[in-house]
Formats: sequence, C-alpha cells, structure tokens
Amino acid sequence: MQTIAVSTSQGAYEVRIGPGLLPSIGRAAREAAGGARAFVVTDENVAAHYLAGAVASLEAAGYAVSSRVLPAGEATKTMASLTALLEDLAAAGMARDDCVVALGGGVIGDLAGFAAAVYMRGCPYIQVPTSLLAMVDSSVGGKTAVDLAAGKNLAGAFWQPRAVIADVTTLETVSDELFRDSVGEVIKYGVLGDAGLFAELERAPLVKADLDMRRAEDVVSRCVAMKRDVVEADEREGGIRQTLNLGHTVGHAIESASGFALGHGSCVAAGLAIMARACVRRGLCPAADAARIEAVIAAHGLPVTSDVGTGILFDLARSDKKRHGERMNVVLVRGIGAVEVRSVPLAELKGLIEEGR
Amino acid sequence: MQTIAVSTSQGAYEVRIGPGLLPSIGRAAREAAGGARAFVVTDENVAAHYLAGAVASLEAAGYAVSSRVLPAGEATKTMASLTALLEDLAAAGMARDDCVVALGGGVIGDLAGFAAAVYMRGCPYIQVPTSLLAMVDSSVGGKTAVDLAAGKNLAGAFWQPRAVIADVTTLETVSDELFRDSVGEVIKYGVLGDAGLFAELERAPLVKADLDMRRAEDVVSRCVAMKRDVVEADEREGGIRQTLNLGHTVGHAIESASGFALGHGSCVAAGLAIMARACVRRGLCPAADAARIEAVIAAHGLPVTSDVGTGILFDLARSDKKRHGERMNVVLVRGIGAVEVRSVPLAELKGLIEEGR
Repeated sequence: MQTIAVSTSQGAYEVRIGPGLLPSIGRAAREAAGGARAFVVTDENVAAHYLAGAVASLEAAGYAVSSRVLPAGEATKTMASLTALLEDLAAAGMARDDCVVALGGGVIGDLAGFAAAVYMRGCPYIQVPTSLLAMVDSSVGGKTAVDLAAGKNLAGAFWQPRAVIADVTTLETVSDELFRDSVGEVIKYGVLGDAGLFAELERAPLVKADLDMRRAEDVVSRCVAMKRDVVEADEREGGIRQTLNLGHTVGHAIESASGFALGHGSCVAAGLAIMARACVRRGLCPAADAARIEAVIAAHGLPVTSDVGTGILFDLARSDKKRHGERMNVVLVRGIGAVEVRSVPLAELKGLIEEGR
Repeated sequence: MQTIAVSTSQGAYEVRIGPGLLPSIGRAAREAAGGARAFVVTDENVAAHYLAGAVASLEAAGYAVSSRVLPAGEATKTMASLTALLEDLAAAGMARDDCVVALGGGVIGDLAGFAAAVYMRGCPYIQVPTSLLAMVDSSVGGKTAVDLAAGKNLAGAFWQPRAVIADVTTLETVSDELFRDSVGEVIKYGVLGDAGLFAELERAPLVKADLDMRRAEDVVSRCVAMKRDVVEADEREGGIRQTLNLGHTVGHAIESASGFALGHGSCVAAGLAIMARACVRRGLCPAADAARIEAVIAAHGLPVTSDVGTGILFDLARSDKKRHGERMNVVLVRGIGAVEVRSVPLAELKGLIEEGR
C-alpha cells in the first residue's frame, strides 16, 4: 500500500492506494471523518460487487448505515439527482458531522462529493474510487460537480474529502471498455509532467487483460502524487492547477457533442492529440513528441481526433469555465512532460482546434 | 454612511450602510468584484421599485447586465429555483469571474448567494439587501441556502459576498407587515449582546410609520457590527457563531409548523420568548429580564408564544442542523445582553420547549 498525504485549506487527508483496502473503509472513515451515521452513494454496477462489503465494514466501525444506489452513467450527474440525494440524506437523519461515502467512479464521486459539500452547508465525506479514472483523477483534489443542461460540471464546489481509499483490486470488475477509456487520463498525466510514466506506457500499454496489482498501484500512485503537487500549489485553480485540464478544453467539447456517449478519457485523449498537433504547427512542440503522443493514444485503442466540425467544437469549448470574457486559458503541449497554460483570444482557440483536427 | 469591514478566510469585504446607496452599486461591484457581465437576481416586489435603477447603475459601470425576476416569498427558496437560476446564468454567458447581484430580501440573498457559490464552483457576488431582515442578518456572513422538503436551509454553502450595499432608503417600500416581522431579528441582536440597542427598542419601538433614516442606519449598523464580530471569530459556525441562532431552534420549528405562513422574524421572536421563559424556570435567567423581552416583543406586535403542540415543535426542532447525534446545541438566555450555547440531550430540549410555551 502507498499513502499520499494531501494538505489543503480545508484540512489534510490521506490517499491510500493498494490492493484489498475495501474492508478497511469503515475504520478509515471512523478515524478521518467520525460521525454516528454513514450514507453510501453508489451506482448499480458497483453495488453488485462492493456495496455489501462496504456497508459491513462501516457497520463494524460503529456506523448506522444507509445507502442509495443510482443508475450508472453520466446521465446521473444532474441537479435533479443532487436534489433527490439531499432529500435522501435528510430522510436518513444525517447530521452535519455524519459521513457520506462515495463508492464508485467519477460520476458517483462528483455527485456524492457535491451533495456532501452543500448538505447542511457541508458535511464530511470519503472517496472510495472503484474506476481507474476516479482513482487517478476525480477522487483527489476536492472538485465536485454536476452537469447543467448548458454544459458539463457547470455547478459544483471545492470540497475536500476526509480520506480517499483506492482499492486497486476493484479495477478487476471495471469493464474493458471503461478501463480503456480511463487510460486517456493516465496518458494525460504522462504528457503533463511524468516522462517516465509516459515511456512505460509506450513500452507496455496499460490494458486490463494483463494488469497486475503492483503496476496498478504504481500507476495510480504516480498520477495521484502529481495531482497532489498541483492541487496543493493551487487549490482553487487560479493558476498551475489549470495544467490538469490538458486535453480537456477540446475534450469536453467532443464529449458534449457526442451527447456524452463517448467516454471522458477517450475525449481527453482526442483533445490532447488535437492540441499536440496544433502546437506542432505553431512551432511550440517538437513533431516527434506529438507523434509519440498520438502513437501511445492509438496503442491504447483511443481516438486521436474527432469527426465533429471545428465550428461546433469551438462553440462548445467557448462555454467552458476557463473562459474569461473574450479570452480562454488553454493548456499547450510543449513536449512530453512539459505543458504551458496560456490565455488566448477566442479566435485563436478556434484556430488551434482547426489546425489540430 | 457607515462602513463595516468584514474579514473572512475567503477574503475581506465591506458592508456599506446608509441612505441613497443604490445608484452606487455598479461602481461598488466594479471595484469589489470585477468581471464583464453582471446578473441581477431579484423578486417581483423589489423589481417594481429598484430593478431598473440597479441595471442602470451596473451598465454605467461597464457591465453587460442580465436579470431574473422570481416570485416573492419563501416558496422560491428551492432546489428547483436554484437549478433554473444556474441554467439562467449559463444561458446569459456568465463566466466564473463575472458578478451575481442579489437584489432583495433574505430569500433572494440566500438563493442568489447559493447560486453564486456553486456556479462554476464559485463566482463573485454582491448583496444588495432591501429588507430590514436581510440588512441586519442574512446579507452578512456568507451563509447561503435553499430549503429542502425535509426542512429549512438544509442545502447551502458558506460563500462570502464581495460587498454588501444596504441602502436604508429601500426600507420605505417594504410592507408594514414585513418590516414588523423583521424587527424580531433586531430584538434578538439586542438580547444577544447589545443591551443598549435593547433599551432603545423599549424606549421607542422600531416601527415603519415613523422610521427616520438616521435611526435605520444606526440600528442596521449595530446589528451588522455584532454579526461581523461573531462571524470573524467563527466563520463556519463551530462555536460562538451559534449564538446568532438565539431563538432559531424553536423559531424554525414554529415556522415549519406554519408551512412558512408565519414570518421568520415573528417565529424567531416567539422562539426567543419561549427560550427566555424556559431559562427563567431553570434559574438561568432573571424573571425580570424575560418579562422585558416579552414586553418588547409584544410592543412590536410580534408573538410571544406558539399554539403548536410541544411534540410537533420538538419533532421539527430535532431535525435542525445543530443536532449532533442525540444531543443538540441550544442558545440559552442568561439575561439581556447575555446568552450561552449549551449542548443538551434531545429530551432536555423537549423539556425546554414544554416549559417555555
């Protein structure tokens, strides 16, 4: 097991990463969050495998436990789901020092975390990510959100968990498709700041079929450590934290254009490849590095571009949270392990999308 | 004009109190919040008097201005209203450094403040309170919320405004009934920690018919200064800030039991009188002080008790956010200008309600 400590303005917490950690979540919640009641939020896929074990662990730690099983998928990340969940928390008699447990992937973590952020103006929660995407990215750093009709993650809060328990054994029950999709975010981390991780992905693609738990623990730990460093330096995304959005400005647009039928990691991978090519055209990134990025993305069965037209992608991208008036902060690729946040006029963003596609 | 500076973990801001300040809100927003767009949230009563002026002031300060006029009343403070408002903000093209303007009473301030707290995970907002209740209480301190079906203010966030502009002239258009109701909170402040303010209310009741602007500015400033002191000492209500809930535990229960037909200030006044009498019975408060509290409440045309049964009030009160497992923090009256927060078992809370009624 590896433990990564995260220090934030809302307090410090630990991310524990390793195999077989699920039975310890009750004890972890007791130590890190306290409270008399625990409320587990999960989805139907995850519940089938892990809900009973999670409840047993929490009960053994002295909690009165309630739970809510939601439909799997991005369509659950709405204000309507949030509203229903908040009423559930109240109906279960949760007080503001009781503990919400987010057991699942990114959708569950974002939704349950947001509910914890606003229930009685904020109650404790722990993240128990069960997908690769949630382990390497969304469970750490305190970003919570739901989607609006107008766009993804447009309503949310910065609310830090009291602990993150990433049991890599749970990756065994993730579908091949979802696992493959999630690798898009891992590739992003490699490009962002870990050339060694990137080289390993080149040497041996990260595929579910031959995943060993040691490698899973290592990959997750490297990504989390990187995210921790960035989040500690810039908790509310005023500066360097924006580098984590590498591939996301265009990626979110591709995801929106697909009606969220395309996976988040796949869209980030495509957005990353598009940005890398655009940066080559502008002389900002060596062509060889962009080629390596494309090759790794393709080797993992992920898309390196999008069929959606530039105009549509631009219109979707400009509604992003990173817009400031007529400018937008974009993350440029300077090479493998090197990126740069730059404020560009909206017209230039459109040019980048056009050149990169 | 009086200016009261408030310092919080989310930054410092000024509360400006005086007559004729409304035309300056554009300049105040420009200086304190910035941004390219402003979105005014208000209700139909307030809009009739002040929306055009607010929009003109914001436009003169260079903002592109949108607005939403909501139905007046507590029924607007729902998750459904919040959801619609968030979609409105997105449709208006608001970025996360643009400015929300809450123009109205407590309902508008709580709802618009909550929307600002979660729109793109937090955007700037300013409070422009137009009711006495909002001026003395809800617009300062960063508490935002909506009601759930399960209870009042059960979903919300701590999110500090960038400025509060309390134009006491706007009190002239508040209905007599609403003004009278609001005085319940002013009396609370007197009991809480300003025996001088309390004595002035005894000497000359605060009634809208003969309100002069100098007195309004003085009363609002004294209440805001008291609230500022408490909020700065305890921003997230872990300790002393709970004293502001004087009269509220029972008051909220009375309010819920009435289906929110009774005004908030009236319910707080009744809750305060009930608690004062219960404290006399327990030897915690001199009988003469409780009698003075009752007399001032009655002199302002506000209720000193409730017809609702103890069992119902207790059931409603126990679902309050101040509950911790089987105990509840209640604010006891020790005399005029002196209160005490005490954790009591739920059974004792029931006894206090029974004895005080």
